[in-house]
Amino acid sequence: MSTNLSAPVRPIAIIGGTGPAGMGLALRWVRAGETVIIGSREHGRARLAAESIISRVGNEARISGMENSAACAAADILMLTVPFEGQASLIKRLKPAITPGSILIDATVPLAAGIGGRASRTLGIWQGSAAQQAAELVPDDVAVVAAFHNCAADLLGGDNPLDCDVIVCSDDPDAAQLTRELAAKIPGVRAIDGGRLENARIVEQITALLVGLNMRHKGHAGIRITGLPPTAYR
Amino acid sequence: MSTNLSAPVRPIAIIGGTGPAGMGLALRWVRAGETVIIGSREHGRARLAAESIISRVGNEARISGMENSAACAAADILMLTVPFEGQASLIKRLKPAITPGSILIDATVPLAAGIGGRASRTLGIWQGSAAQQAAELVPDDVAVVAAFHNCAADLLGGDNPLDCDVIVCSDDPDAAQLTRELAAKIPGVRAIDGGRLENARIVEQITALLVGLNMRHKGHAGIRITGLPPTAYR
Repeated sequence: MSTNLSAPVRPIAIIGGTGPAGMGLALRWVRAGETVIIGSREHGRARLAAESIISRVGNEARISGMENSAACAAADILMLTVPFEGQASLIKRLKPAITPGSILIDATVPLAAGIGGRASRTLGIWQGSAAQQAAELVPDDVAVVAAFHNCAADLLGGDNPLDCDVIVCSDDPDAAQLTRELAAKIPGVRAIDGGRLENARIVEQITALLVGLNMRHKGHAGIRITGLPPTAYR
Repeated sequence: MSTNLSAPVRPIAIIGGTGPAGMGLALRWVRAGETVIIGSREHGRARLAAESIISRVGNEARISGMENSAACAAADILMLTVPFEGQASLIKRLKPAITPGSILIDATVPLAAGIGGRASRTLGIWQGSAAQQAAELVPDDVAVVAAFHNCAADLLGGDNPLDCDVIVCSDDPDAAQLTRELAAKIPGVRAIDGGRLENARIVEQITALLVGLNMRHKGHAGIRITGLPPTAYR
């Protein structure tokens, strides 16, 4: 494997990464040349997931599988793709393994399905959003970014360019910019600065609306924001 | 003026229609051949608004201006485009003038700006959304539809086709279909069945997100839903 010596490898750990969203992001980022670690509760399951990506992308794929805590310790860009009902307890458990100064990208959506309700409805979160709940739980020196809520996981795991914008919300401008750059590596995705982390309240809700549209219309809905100047997509 | 005798005129009363959203809808619908009544607190202001539409569309424009209650009594399709803080008291005041069996299309967004907060934030509404608040206030035989929240008012009042989808939510399928047909008369707009009225909770929130994007990126943001089959836009 050839490595660009001027750009040190900075792996992305996809925590809870064996579900459709995590696998889709892993596939797209590995294809874009990123180094990915798939995390799972079980090491064996994570390794199988990584192997399935390698079988699709080829042996040049820079991807491995680890138990979630090990994945967390091996990277300082953490991508969280877990069902809402497991988010808080997972972050609490991982906390000792998080490298100081890490970035946590959270794609959690508080769907009511998590407590036996409908996937087209959401739960009220005391902090305002799942991302803000995450921000309360991580160590102070970890920047939380909300992103990747509104692209259909099925399409993310496919081979075609997406038709979807990723709205990125964070109180940390550098972490937000890095996340926008990662989003823009996915073919067809435009990344948009969505402002402060509190705006994740709305971005998370949109997913429930899209789930409802998918159920009603048998689709794989995503969103595009129209009417913004080209500078908005940087 | 020639009239199609097979299709009786069914005017649309745009209540509180002298603001940018109301004027934009009036312009687009009059251009599409609909008969519109602009409603305002002051009769004179409503007439001036109607005249300004006539000056843009021409003398064939079927539009008039009336005080809100009179506009309400003269139509059974009511389009509500008022700031959130005036919505409840206006509906209560208009209630005696509403024709039984009317359709109320509500575009109200509970922006925090209405109580001195930010236009990129929303207020929590006890009923869940401004549209559900409206549904609680109208007579039982009035169908409430939530729609037209997410198109930029500035662009609606212009001459170019829009680049925007209108998500229509209602518990009354006939009223929802009529509203989707009215939305589809606006060039560039696709109307999408967004399901039950409760989903207005999310559609209303999206406006606050778009307002924030407009402030941050100096644009006129709207949304498109991607990934749905053509049958979704009926």
